[in-house]
Amino acid sequence: LLHVAIVCAGLNSSREVVTLVKSMLFYRKNPLHLHLVTDAVARSILETLFRTWMVPALGVSFYDADQPKPQISWIPNKHYSGLYGLMKLVLPGILPPGLAQVIVLDTDVTFASDIAELWALFAYFSDKQVIGLVENQSDWYLGNLWKNHRPWPALGRGFNTGVILLWLDRLRRAGWEQMWQLTARRELLTHPATSLADQDIFNAVIKEHPGLVQPLPCVWNVQLSDHTLAELCYLEAADLKVIHWNSPKKLRVKNKHAEFFRNLYLTFLGYDGNLLRRELFGCPSQPPTGAEQLQQSLAQLDEEDACFEFRQQQLTVHRVHITFLPHKPPPPRPHDVTLVAQLSMDRLQMLEALCRHWPGPMSLALYLTDAEAQQFLHFVEASPVLSARQDVAYHVVYREGPLYPVNQLRNVALAQALTPYVFLSDIDFLPAYSLYDYLRASIEQLGLGSLRKAALVVPAFETLRYRLSFPRSKAELLALLDAGALSTFRYHEWPRGHAATDYASWREAQAPYRVQWAADYEPYVVVPRDCPRYDPRFVGFGWNKVAHIMELDAQEYELLVLPEAFTIHLPHTPSLDISRFRSSPAYRACLQALKEEFHQDLSRRYGAAALKYLTALQRPRSPV
Amino acid sequence: LLHVAIVCAGLNSSREVVTLVKSMLFYRKNPLHLHLVTDAVARSILETLFRTWMVPALGVSFYDADQPKPQISWIPNKHYSGLYGLMKLVLPGILPPGLAQVIVLDTDVTFASDIAELWALFAYFSDKQVIGLVENQSDWYLGNLWKNHRPWPALGRGFNTGVILLWLDRLRRAGWEQMWQLTARRELLTHPATSLADQDIFNAVIKEHPGLVQPLPCVWNVQLSDHTLAELCYLEAADLKVIHWNSPKKLRVKNKHAEFFRNLYLTFLGYDGNLLRRELFGCPSQPPTGAEQLQQSLAQLDEEDACFEFRQQQLTVHRVHITFLPHKPPPPRPHDVTLVAQLSMDRLQMLEALCRHWPGPMSLALYLTDAEAQQFLHFVEASPVLSARQDVAYHVVYREGPLYPVNQLRNVALAQALTPYVFLSDIDFLPAYSLYDYLRASIEQLGLGSLRKAALVVPAFETLRYRLSFPRSKAELLALLDAGALSTFRYHEWPRGHAATDYASWREAQAPYRVQWAADYEPYVVVPRDCPRYDPRFVGFGWNKVAHIMELDAQEYELLVLPEAFTIHLPHTPSLDISRFRSSPAYRACLQALKEEFHQDLSRRYGAAALKYLTALQRPRSPV
Repeated sequence: LLHVAIVCAGLNSSREVVTLVKSMLFYRKNPLHLHLVTDAVARSILETLFRTWMVPALGVSFYDADQPKPQISWIPNKHYSGLYGLMKLVLPGILPPGLAQVIVLDTDVTFASDIAELWALFAYFSDKQVIGLVENQSDWYLGNLWKNHRPWPALGRGFNTGVILLWLDRLRRAGWEQMWQLTARRELLTHPATSLADQDIFNAVIKEHPGLVQPLPCVWNVQLSDHTLAELCYLEAADLKVIHWNSPKKLRVKNKHAEFFRNLYLTFLGYDGNLLRRELFGCPSQPPTGAEQLQQSLAQLDEEDACFEFRQQQLTVHRVHITFLPHKPPPPRPHDVTLVAQLSMDRLQMLEALCRHWPGPMSLALYLTDAEAQQFLHFVEASPVLSARQDVAYHVVYREGPLYPVNQLRNVALAQALTPYVFLSDIDFLPAYSLYDYLRASIEQLGLGSLRKAALVVPAFETLRYRLSFPRSKAELLALLDAGALSTFRYHEWPRGHAATDYASWREAQAPYRVQWAADYEPYVVVPRDCPRYDPRFVGFGWNKVAHIMELDAQEYELLVLPEAFTIHLPHTPSLDISRFRSSPAYRACLQALKEEFHQDLSRRYGAAALKYLTALQRPRSPV
Repeated sequence: LLHVAIVCAGLNSSREVVTLVKSMLFYRKNPLHLHLVTDAVARSILETLFRTWMVPALGVSFYDADQPKPQISWIPNKHYSGLYGLMKLVLPGILPPGLAQVIVLDTDVTFASDIAELWALFAYFSDKQVIGLVENQSDWYLGNLWKNHRPWPALGRGFNTGVILLWLDRLRRAGWEQMWQLTARRELLTHPATSLADQDIFNAVIKEHPGLVQPLPCVWNVQLSDHTLAELCYLEAADLKVIHWNSPKKLRVKNKHAEFFRNLYLTFLGYDGNLLRRELFGCPSQPPTGAEQLQQSLAQLDEEDACFEFRQQQLTVHRVHITFLPHKPPPPRPHDVTLVAQLSMDRLQMLEALCRHWPGPMSLALYLTDAEAQQFLHFVEASPVLSARQDVAYHVVYREGPLYPVNQLRNVALAQALTPYVFLSDIDFLPAYSLYDYLRASIEQLGLGSLRKAALVVPAFETLRYRLSFPRSKAELLALLDAGALSTFRYHEWPRGHAATDYASWREAQAPYRVQWAADYEPYVVVPRDCPRYDPRFVGFGWNKVAHIMELDAQEYELLVLPEAFTIHLPHTPSLDISRFRSSPAYRACLQALKEEFHQDLSRRYGAAALKYLTALQRPRSPV
């Protein structure tokens, strides 16, 4: 069992650390334990990620990076990593006292070999050595790079702290805390600040106590900066072990072999993390939380069951990376509403229009492969409209299995909504420009949540035309409706889905009006954030919203239609999944079976009150 | 420099071999030379693939597998690999006489380590040993698997020939050819046929001459069959080197650790092959053909040029895997027409409808990542409509760079069309049901190609409605046009593109009529296969077809509109690329620059005759 410690703070580092971990897991053949020192943001992201990743023989512990801050915040530091850059100095105090040895890594390193080979270097430490480091591969510490540049003291060109073997119990016994603090205080009398964060202090301590350091072979920290001397290292060794992107330019660094290194990095950036869920055989270790139960449930499935694929998909635990991109939580406002939706790659082009129509917070779940997640990142960065919005949270749910897990995606987006209310929408809809303001006003006026348990219905329309001049008001919408440029949603194919909204009343309505639940009703609604979750048994297409509305009704939510609210479905090419299944009788038979099971569960939970849903289901359908 | 020989025949093996090669290249640190013994189909696929892959320090030679057939075709063989399964016996005669040693691999193995480690095992051969093999990991040769099963003779459980170290010059000196033939002839007196192809014969020879074989460590050929004993091997070794999918069930094999092995295989299946173009530094080797020239051209580009991205994209050499899926070339017919088009993942759902509308041969270029190519394969396999069609050739062009290389894709599809005529279409169009037959009849009647140098124009229409009842005749089409359900293509946004087709004349026409070229004319045409190629400088969107039509006109193709032909554009969500660039002034400025350069080239090639295009370009455009 090998131990690895990483300091990780913020959204961007959380993304970086995943690539590092993938490269480590790809080559490893031993159980690993990660010790992650994180701020609250990184913790929430990485806890979710590792819990859902379920990698066998991988333990993860979290440590609060805010708590040891006072021990280092007195040190002035000019390095881009900020205060967290100094955190490695206090690791012996943060990590459990029983932990004797640990490998410490920066988030910007990539493995090209098995980490056990690195761990094996502890065996070469003399009794007095406590810290293993690779020499710097630039001339920074020689002080001759720039005029008037006076670096901190170091042995020769100093050591790089991107990869450290730390012998923790020896450090603790040697009085490490006092040692580095003394050195730092003394040097800060003549240096205004550290330039390279912890690295300056490590080097100054080593200069004073050269016996502490075990120099490591340079291949364990090949440093890629603009003027790196790394070539001297790997030309000899020809066997790269760990790459360190230690230039602030990261992947854009100019370097003779940059292309080679970038390819290695890109390999893991786009690598399907699900493939790392492989067991390490010959190596007993505790299975990840929930893994055994999951295995049992999967083993109980009947391969002959017509719904086998559906049930398997429902049980699939998808890796989830919440807040994948920069995001600022909305300020607490009592009537605020988050738009909740889900999408895959083929709907990215909806995002800009959606941002223009909905100026409020959004929580979106994206169903992507690892490689697509990177394309998505570039797409957002290239869009001025999207990159200007900090109130849209993107949650990546990694693809696995043949069916689109629509309700699982909705639940991820819903769970991450941070406002008291949510507008449960779909990605192909554009809301009225005024909807965000209007909803907040309506929520306040109606006393939703506190006074009244209600779901506010936003009437849905559709256009079959690409170049719709989007209506600016209800009056304009009604004119387009009369002109045939718009119709009520799915009027031709599936009127039951929205008939209960009662469009005739809506046309005349001046105030919110109540409607009754009806079979197959699936309106778009605004509800408090703590509303029931979607039923994850509905995967692929069909009945996923219907079941949710039924559950709202069972819990006695009033259905109130808002007279000025509307949202319009835009045309799109049918998705691959929907075309694949529209023609499949097996699919429809299975959906029927799932519906019946859902009704049974409903009866179990809500008793006699749920009978009406069963009756509605059994009533023969008359064509409308 | 390490040498590897692989026997590969047919389309499916060509796909398999790519995954093997990717795994080999991923771990290798030495120059490699591949010796590929192929039939004509595999040769044409793999020659194109390796030429366009441009992997540094990788040599490839081809050998005709049909030529040595007489040497082995007399051997009755029941193994699923057929005659090609016996080809390894005659490798010493096929490979160059100067080649002393070679590693021989089956197409169904996957590397999990550096092949140089395997090559190093030649050093352990005694003077008499000529062949290195791993023992079988099943009890097949013990003869106790089935009742009445009488295997060929072997030492113990025999050796597996999926991975062979072959000491060629020693084999040749030892009179290998006579040796195996003698043994085979003798054994065939009592055995009706070989069951495991070459493997039975190798084992029979070894049984007779045990001194020839150097047993290799079992990790170099971990055999994954249903009842494999492989576990005994790797539980000891814990370090897998080569996985062999030697069950006829391949990836669907049931096995305790199948999941682990599958993950390894899937890693390389979806691995971006472009990443393997990395240089091996510290290891001088000849650059791939064309690589130096390409480097020079790329180096000459000006990063400040507004068209830098376009020019870079134009110079990109995309990896091309022609006939990715099963395909039967159409029988030679003098007036046959192939539909030529290109697409990416977001248009897959068009393929079924296209197959219903066009019953003739198609040549389609698909712009995909390696992972998407696998999704595409599953998509076709899952579709009864698509998998029933053997006359549709799919050519995968692997994605690289930010712009869609539309004309490079068209040229790939065009180059692979096997009929004398081609219909140059786009993927969003559905042709009239009768078009295929009508075109062939028209080509014959008009004497196209031989008597007359002409391009037949197929008038283009569009609908903005998803649920169009597709017209069965010209009369039905005209009725829909009058009813407003159809319009002529791009009538509202860009009438110049098709105005020259003269829809008013078409309405009345009973016979083909000639039209004149006009600026910005871009009709869909039928031309002989040897027509000019598309100009690859036009990438992304804009002017890509216009330039081609201009070139047809410069080469004095008559433009003949067919009175009964039509094709209809279906609505679709705008592609990501088009939305990204529609709003970009830099894009439009660059397109203008590319147009001007194209005109200059046209003048250079066609002289004064090309002046009219320049004049047309400079004439101010009046709104239509």
